[in-house]
Amino acid sequence: MPVSTSKPIKIEKLTPRQPYGLTVVITGNGKGKTTSAMGMALRASGHGLKTCIIQFMKGDLYTGEWDGVKMLGELVELHATGMGFCGIQGNPYTHAEHRASAQAAVALARKKIASGDFQIVILDEINNALKLKLVDLEQVLDLVKGKPSFMHLVMTGRDAHPDVVELADTVSEVREIKHAYQKDIEPQPGIDY
Amino acid sequence: MPVSTSKPIKIEKLTPRQPYGLTVVITGNGKGKTTSAMGMALRASGHGLKTCIIQFMKGDLYTGEWDGVKMLGELVELHATGMGFCGIQGNPYTHAEHRASAQAAVALARKKIASGDFQIVILDEINNALKLKLVDLEQVLDLVKGKPSFMHLVMTGRDAHPDVVELADTVSEVREIKHAYQKDIEPQPGIDY
Repeated sequence: MPVSTSKPIKIEKLTPRQPYGLTVVITGNGKGKTTSAMGMALRASGHGLKTCIIQFMKGDLYTGEWDGVKMLGELVELHATGMGFCGIQGNPYTHAEHRASAQAAVALARKKIASGDFQIVILDEINNALKLKLVDLEQVLDLVKGKPSFMHLVMTGRDAHPDVVELADTVSEVREIKHAYQKDIEPQPGIDY
Repeated sequence: MPVSTSKPIKIEKLTPRQPYGLTVVITGNGKGKTTSAMGMALRASGHGLKTCIIQFMKGDLYTGEWDGVKMLGELVELHATGMGFCGIQGNPYTHAEHRASAQAAVALARKKIASGDFQIVILDEINNALKLKLVDLEQVLDLVKGKPSFMHLVMTGRDAHPDVVELADTVSEVREIKHAYQKDIEPQPGIDY
């Protein structure tokens, strides 16, 4: 058990008097949106809360969180869906194919949210999917408005829609100040994927 | 094993031709800095990489990542140090006491970085510790400049020093667009702590 606190103090465990299912949006063009969502899944697991992660825009590139969340056992369920980034050069799929995949992910999200099995549902890169018209604004707003009141809903991805931001309780914008790719450094495992 | 991908495709695992130890800074006033660092630890664990997390400004309030990282077993070591937020009303410790605690954390960081045991070292909220003069700029720059070349160093906390930003490869600023506390919603476990 490699966790230590440096002082022999009593640790206080907060419990909110008013449990509240937050709607959280993590947007912006910088590194740290999906990463932050994964951190919430880790933190939630520490509390014994169950998280469902649905990734909307994943392609065929391996990313470490897929094996990382397996270590959290039954507390985290992760569904990697999508056909990679729509509109990016070299991506072989049509818009209709991307949209069909995203629509299946929305249906899955609706089912997981309605199940009541999860205290947290993370829709990773759904903001991009909305921006690219793979899902519709009304679909996203319906997911937010229809969620169980105690369930937290986290939505990530750049270009969050203003109406989604308006509905959310907590919104962070991750701005890129600089990034290693600008120095031609390749993506590094553990940090970038 | 609750991880699924939606397509019967071959997953490609990237390996950089040039492994490079990144220096990453996550700063800004919004939610998602420590959370993002925890996500990197989770992602790194998926790759089988070892992470050491040293938290500089933790007080006596429980946070879910302490139990979350235990699920990652021997891959993650976490040290929660500090006396809570220096300068915040109600904090009973003197600046000298806060500084002594942060100085011990710097010494621990130096040791863990030099050990070569970790592919990633995360210094959580060291930016705040520097801003509050609990650690010195030269100490932080020395940690960055002296790290093993293949080791990733991640530093979080608001008000990152410009000289630290200058040395870093990847820097994100997390801006608060809105936060639930502005609507008098209490911090919620799994999301806020």
